[in-house]
Amino acid sequence: MKGKLVLVPNTLDLGTDCEVDLREVLPQAVIERAAKLAYWATENAKTTRALLKRVDRLVPLALPLQQIQITELPRPAKGGAVARGASPDLKPLLAPALAGHDLGLLSEAGLPAVADPGAALVQAAHAMGIVVEPLAGPSSLLLALAASGLNGQSFAFVGYLPVDTASRAARIRELDALSRRLGQTQIAIETPYRNDALLGALAEHLQPGTRLAIASGLTLPAGRCETRTAQQWRSTPGPALGGRLPAVFLWLAA
Amino acid sequence: MKGKLVLVPNTLDLGTDCEVDLREVLPQAVIERAAKLAYWATENAKTTRALLKRVDRLVPLALPLQQIQITELPRPAKGGAVARGASPDLKPLLAPALAGHDLGLLSEAGLPAVADPGAALVQAAHAMGIVVEPLAGPSSLLLALAASGLNGQSFAFVGYLPVDTASRAARIRELDALSRRLGQTQIAIETPYRNDALLGALAEHLQPGTRLAIASGLTLPAGRCETRTAQQWRSTPGPALGGRLPAVFLWLAA
Repeated sequence: MKGKLVLVPNTLDLGTDCEVDLREVLPQAVIERAAKLAYWATENAKTTRALLKRVDRLVPLALPLQQIQITELPRPAKGGAVARGASPDLKPLLAPALAGHDLGLLSEAGLPAVADPGAALVQAAHAMGIVVEPLAGPSSLLLALAASGLNGQSFAFVGYLPVDTASRAARIRELDALSRRLGQTQIAIETPYRNDALLGALAEHLQPGTRLAIASGLTLPAGRCETRTAQQWRSTPGPALGGRLPAVFLWLAA
Repeated sequence: MKGKLVLVPNTLDLGTDCEVDLREVLPQAVIERAAKLAYWATENAKTTRALLKRVDRLVPLALPLQQIQITELPRPAKGGAVARGASPDLKPLLAPALAGHDLGLLSEAGLPAVADPGAALVQAAHAMGIVVEPLAGPSSLLLALAASGLNGQSFAFVGYLPVDTASRAARIRELDALSRRLGQTQIAIETPYRNDALLGALAEHLQPGTRLAIASGLTLPAGRCETRTAQQWRSTPGPALGGRLPAVFLWLAA
């Protein structure tokens, strides 16, 4: 009897100055389930241990932290391009499930395997006949979409935009045209220290009437979401996002 | 001082034979917040009262249910095409927030304003300077994406496919080609009683090597997610989805 691959949602406060109460963002049953798992596959063992300590304060861990096996996923870094071609052998990571133990998959933020490298492990689990069970939890992308008031019936997540100025401008214009043609909300993310640069580029290169929403720090006390036209962002930029809060950028052409 | 528009997530069990414990899918703080709200804008007053009764069993409501004001959003029905042009006046719905009270927005399932008509109210709130606060909760679309093992770094939600057989086949081929060109996971939903028909059409019209995932009843005991190639779905269809469980369909071309 195989164990399951359990997709465990994380909080959205990593790298911020704020540590939210887990009960603000995770269902009680998810916290209890996390406290029971003895095997984990994660992006980062250190932040996983930090989360498990927070779990332990609410629901005592079934095993001492030192006895919980945490194995890191192979890189690339979160949000990088999907590796095509040669992929690492993920079977060793799934060994606990093959041996009958439930195995938790955890991302650095929100749902694992969304906007991070975890999908390859989920794919490998399906290929090996391991049942995949996703636990309910927050996704910053969809919280941002809900809060934006933009079209929630047709949307696309496009990941990171190019860093190079000219390529980024071209990509913004391309995605603005796509949004207009399909009536589709476009969703992008950025490394926090580049948030203000991306906001500036979007305000500059989107058509003036395109509605642009910035959601930052959602689920945190500092969380906010503002939706204005690109023209309005240009004329009244508002306070800087700063380099600490995770942000989600969304736009819908008029 | 205006109140906020609070986006309250719902469970994913509407219309199924199963009523999950709210603590499986909603954070404790969200249940507590819902128990305090005296004003709601929702798709359906009856199902909203049913949810509030479930809340009340865990956290007593601040007001008797009869005194809680529940106002229904104007149609169109959930998931229908986005109305363009003439839009109803939503200001009366936002009157409680303008008068200083927090106002809850609730969908029939999952996050409000995603794959439902709530976005127009959120847009109106932004236009009137009402702060929008999304509370953490599940989205069946992203739980399905996480569980599918398909590309979680580039994906699009396309809503419902056409019902007409020929139009649906053409749309499936179009979205398969788009998925191949962009490496983008395509996500669609269907009214439950048509789930098996859609699965059959996808298995028939997607390219044989396209990976197709069906996630049904996620967060319910009967929940499952299977990912196989269209060719495999054709040759071994597996048990019928039946007409009761909500399902999400996802595919990624090879």
